[in-house]
Amino acid sequence: MAPSSSTTQTMELADLAPRLLKKERANATFDVESCLEVILGSPAAQAHRKQLVELIQADPNLGDRDMMYRNHSESYAMGLAKSNAFVTFLNRHNITDKDEIMAAYYLVGDVLPMVVHLTMFIPTLETQMDDAQRNYWLPKALAYEIIGAYAQTELGHGSNIQGIETTAQYDHTTQEFILHSPTLTSRKWWPGGLAKTANYCVLYARLFVEDVDRGVQAFLVPIRDPKTHETLPGVSLGDIGPKIGFHAVDNGYCVLNQVRIPRQNMLMRFAQVAPDGTFSKPPMDKLVYFTMVKIRVHCVYYCARVISAVSTIATRFSAARLQGTTGNGKPENQVLDYENQQLTLFPLIALGYACYFTHNVVKSLYEQVEAQFHADIGMEQLYLLGQLHASASGLKALLTEEVADGIERARRACGGHGYSASSNIPYIFQAFIGAVTFEGTKDVLTQQHTQFLLKCLNNPMPLPDVAVGSLDLLGFLKADAHAKCSATTPQQLREPQVLLQAFQVRALKLLLRSDAAKTSLHHLTQASLAHAESIVLSCFYQGVMAVPDPKLQAVLLQLWQLYGLWRIQANLGEFRLDDYLSSSQGAWSQDQLLELLRVVRPNAVALVDGFGISDFELNSAIGRYDGDIYRALIERATHEPLNAMDVTPGYHKWLKPLLTAKL
Amino acid sequence: MAPSSSTTQTMELADLAPRLLKKERANATFDVESCLEVILGSPAAQAHRKQLVELIQADPNLGDRDMMYRNHSESYAMGLAKSNAFVTFLNRHNITDKDEIMAAYYLVGDVLPMVVHLTMFIPTLETQMDDAQRNYWLPKALAYEIIGAYAQTELGHGSNIQGIETTAQYDHTTQEFILHSPTLTSRKWWPGGLAKTANYCVLYARLFVEDVDRGVQAFLVPIRDPKTHETLPGVSLGDIGPKIGFHAVDNGYCVLNQVRIPRQNMLMRFAQVAPDGTFSKPPMDKLVYFTMVKIRVHCVYYCARVISAVSTIATRFSAARLQGTTGNGKPENQVLDYENQQLTLFPLIALGYACYFTHNVVKSLYEQVEAQFHADIGMEQLYLLGQLHASASGLKALLTEEVADGIERARRACGGHGYSASSNIPYIFQAFIGAVTFEGTKDVLTQQHTQFLLKCLNNPMPLPDVAVGSLDLLGFLKADAHAKCSATTPQQLREPQVLLQAFQVRALKLLLRSDAAKTSLHHLTQASLAHAESIVLSCFYQGVMAVPDPKLQAVLLQLWQLYGLWRIQANLGEFRLDDYLSSSQGAWSQDQLLELLRVVRPNAVALVDGFGISDFELNSAIGRYDGDIYRALIERATHEPLNAMDVTPGYHKWLKPLLTAKL
Repeated sequence: MAPSSSTTQTMELADLAPRLLKKERANATFDVESCLEVILGSPAAQAHRKQLVELIQADPNLGDRDMMYRNHSESYAMGLAKSNAFVTFLNRHNITDKDEIMAAYYLVGDVLPMVVHLTMFIPTLETQMDDAQRNYWLPKALAYEIIGAYAQTELGHGSNIQGIETTAQYDHTTQEFILHSPTLTSRKWWPGGLAKTANYCVLYARLFVEDVDRGVQAFLVPIRDPKTHETLPGVSLGDIGPKIGFHAVDNGYCVLNQVRIPRQNMLMRFAQVAPDGTFSKPPMDKLVYFTMVKIRVHCVYYCARVISAVSTIATRFSAARLQGTTGNGKPENQVLDYENQQLTLFPLIALGYACYFTHNVVKSLYEQVEAQFHADIGMEQLYLLGQLHASASGLKALLTEEVADGIERARRACGGHGYSASSNIPYIFQAFIGAVTFEGTKDVLTQQHTQFLLKCLNNPMPLPDVAVGSLDLLGFLKADAHAKCSATTPQQLREPQVLLQAFQVRALKLLLRSDAAKTSLHHLTQASLAHAESIVLSCFYQGVMAVPDPKLQAVLLQLWQLYGLWRIQANLGEFRLDDYLSSSQGAWSQDQLLELLRVVRPNAVALVDGFGISDFELNSAIGRYDGDIYRALIERATHEPLNAMDVTPGYHKWLKPLLTAKL
Repeated sequence: MAPSSSTTQTMELADLAPRLLKKERANATFDVESCLEVILGSPAAQAHRKQLVELIQADPNLGDRDMMYRNHSESYAMGLAKSNAFVTFLNRHNITDKDEIMAAYYLVGDVLPMVVHLTMFIPTLETQMDDAQRNYWLPKALAYEIIGAYAQTELGHGSNIQGIETTAQYDHTTQEFILHSPTLTSRKWWPGGLAKTANYCVLYARLFVEDVDRGVQAFLVPIRDPKTHETLPGVSLGDIGPKIGFHAVDNGYCVLNQVRIPRQNMLMRFAQVAPDGTFSKPPMDKLVYFTMVKIRVHCVYYCARVISAVSTIATRFSAARLQGTTGNGKPENQVLDYENQQLTLFPLIALGYACYFTHNVVKSLYEQVEAQFHADIGMEQLYLLGQLHASASGLKALLTEEVADGIERARRACGGHGYSASSNIPYIFQAFIGAVTFEGTKDVLTQQHTQFLLKCLNNPMPLPDVAVGSLDLLGFLKADAHAKCSATTPQQLREPQVLLQAFQVRALKLLLRSDAAKTSLHHLTQASLAHAESIVLSCFYQGVMAVPDPKLQAVLLQLWQLYGLWRIQANLGEFRLDDYLSSSQGAWSQDQLLELLRVVRPNAVALVDGFGISDFELNSAIGRYDGDIYRALIERATHEPLNAMDVTPGYHKWLKPLLTAKL
């Protein structure tokens, strides 16, 4: 009697969804395997990676994905369990290569309390300790005899290291430093693992020797008893409380009350205090500079991973989801067929590829420069390193913001399901947006970037002889600031030389404007973003040109064009400065962008498949490879702890009295 | 021996912060009391509100603000406690007026499991039941003898109500409806309170009488036993799992297996099924239309509350926070003195005022139209209601997105402290971004909006005789699409008639473009946003003009100019369409915007004080009125449950084995 057959769909939506994804894949014009080789490397490398994923997924602790059900305390407890499991895992499988450790860490899919031990504490011992110190401490850290935090940020000061208030007074009578938190705001605040996990920390404090200020130096400070793990006398430790993300990490505070440590605990590679108090400071090793560049280049990779995951989730969902008809009785549309949905998602797919290719180019450029540094260091190499440092700063500022904003747009494009933790977009967003502020906020980085560019503009140096790969970071300075866009037809706006020139001229114009208005921080910022965007466009283009498979290359070139036109649309006012683009060309750029949406549409699902992210990594009910999204959502809900009981305890205490009271 | 006096600051930062806010207030050029009257009403109304805040703050359950420490299950349990406390509170203080209930509810500061009972279930009974039904059920709902959910959305369908798959088959032999979930995707999914709280729900299902499809209708369905609260036979209920926000709400699913309800349980105001199965459907009452407009207008108020709270937090923090020096030995700068910080925050303060004034104007227009409807309804009134409906849809789409994006920008502007739950920006963001998708997504609403405008464009009607207040929603249609901006000096870009015209011409141009490219959803969206923005600018201007205090009015006018120029900058490509703004004028608009930042700067803190949001409502350690932000952050951390123990249990189980193993 139930009129099941009279509904408009002849097949259940739940069964239709996987078929829709299959159809998408059949319609693609390129071979996904080719793309996987570009992004993940050779079939052997892919197989190796797949094995790693399977091993971690099979681990009872590392395979856990129930983060969404836990509060901060519960997340931290599980974070410790995962930390233990992770170390055990690395040992069992004899994983010692740093890149492979990081690859495994990414797969764990949660931020662990010991992340700072691995990514900040150990590298700091390596780079800032002298040989004797390093030989003593590094093996202990690598063997987890000690676990360290990195205590730089204070309650009153973040990225401005010169504002640090913690003091280290040298007492030559006992050959000790006395570490102290002289004010409320001098307490260390934020360091990951500092609250409950670490028993040592690298701590930054202003050094005074005989009341002479010797600047901010780093010290190795024991904070917990190695036997009992109890907080040591004179030290106060605690957790700063919950955050948007990083729930499993015990971001902490530390107050020091006249804590004495031996002289040998100052990190002595770059500055020394002799037993008698004599202070010496050799010129800064360029290694520190390299480390900063390296971390910012790595941020580009982090951006690539995150936005490719989110665009994968949202694109598959939009292809599997039907909603709304064009008319009476017609079948519903795939959400991915709506222009607004395409305009939200396709640029994010492009951004994913842009980040991967940019990371490849910039990383290899970095490695090339680093290799040359083993020879003599001249002014030219320093100049080149300066370029790389400035550009990497600008890239970090630009791309973390683009990706953070992009995640949220993708989430909204998934409607209600994007608001649900089952999509996993909330978790990814909450963890990622930390990256917009950590390792330098946008304001600080873009300022550094443009200040360097202004120096180059006003004191041009001949380009160094050393090879700079295929990327000319300062080439835009040679562009013609008075040029106009040469496109005479809408189609010409897609041409590589037209697009590349548009971004270079814009970058130069904004730099010149910034030069004219020296006090405007806003102008500095805009100039930095414009230059960074020009670099991304170049790197993306180079990456596409190097793709061996012509079918894939053709599709990625369309995606590249879409990316360029999207950025023009997003900043049309800047591209129309001095009418570089005329009003017509501005209108064409929108028409071309909308046309490219239709061109890219048939390959959208294949393009996200090409990122090669496993279902385990995505951890998303709506982003599954097989498109079986509705059963996955239903299955996921069965794990919700509230569903363990039909009638919850709160009913008896709070609801029943209401329901039965006659008011 | 500790060199405490040799640091650059002579006063502790923690003590300096409150003084900085005091100084800000002393420098303001207007009287905050005047502003509070504009935003909150008469001193008597303010006092009444203050008392309400104090009463709720003093309530042991309603005053709770420890949401950040709880997982979903814990949040739900506390949500029930707060629900009980809220009802008790309303009874104790004899609060029965709907607006006052909502005012109290806003102050509770958490989303409660019974929110849907109050905001959706009861209103639906009121508007969709016939008189006999209403007389029977409404008193029960008002007295909490029954608690209801609103079950429209299904797993497979959100805003597209025509896609609903749940069926209701009429059985005239027993005079019952048989409700059934025929497919996996037909299960109700998302309704708040449906999982564990409600014992009834209004449920939407496609009605079949004798196999004839009679469209989607509403039914009142008992889902839990009134005595035991256990799920009734044939019904499956559960929670869909955690979300970004709304942790205290049991958003649920419901599967129906041939559940029978009496014929009388169909909501019969607009459609009836007689005992013999005869179906009748009178023309839709305009009341439904009114309800939709009312809810969307209310969204504007919600936007105002949220962005004013967030801009208050971020602005006070930025004024109390010092960071970075301009040179050696100089004192540090207030973060609020950085141009980028001003460019982030001042437009958001302006957006707060824009939303308040827009809500005032549009709400009073709505009430005026509603009052006239008690007289005869003619075509002209319908036309006017159509205008209001379309505009309110566009405003909801525009402003929820602007506010959501604005919260995140403000959060980033607070650096690390914005990532911490102590700032409360995370909680506000997570709850608010639901509003971007609920009650109609941007795509759907902007389409409705522009489709209506296109109808008006192509079939112009003489304006109705009924007064439309001072707001001419369709006035932009009479603008000159070929006009150019008349400003001949940068300063002229601030003039009201210049700014207002720019937004009207832009709205008209984009509507004409949309008319030309009928298939582009993107063009429809852009036209809607442009028109909505023009309405906001008008309403904001009207609000400013009506301010009685000339000093306050002068400051709000500057803020209005800043708002207009900010929106021009954000959409400069559109304002430069056909060179409406020349390249020079485009550049001027940026210069003027940056100059207005400096003009507004001295009043920034007073302007957020003028929103009149109490510390209890802000619930932010860094947004406190008194600026004592550092002590507040330290105090807040003492509540973190992890800090109850120095050594957590996880240490013994997971960390100790690592620390003592020799690897």
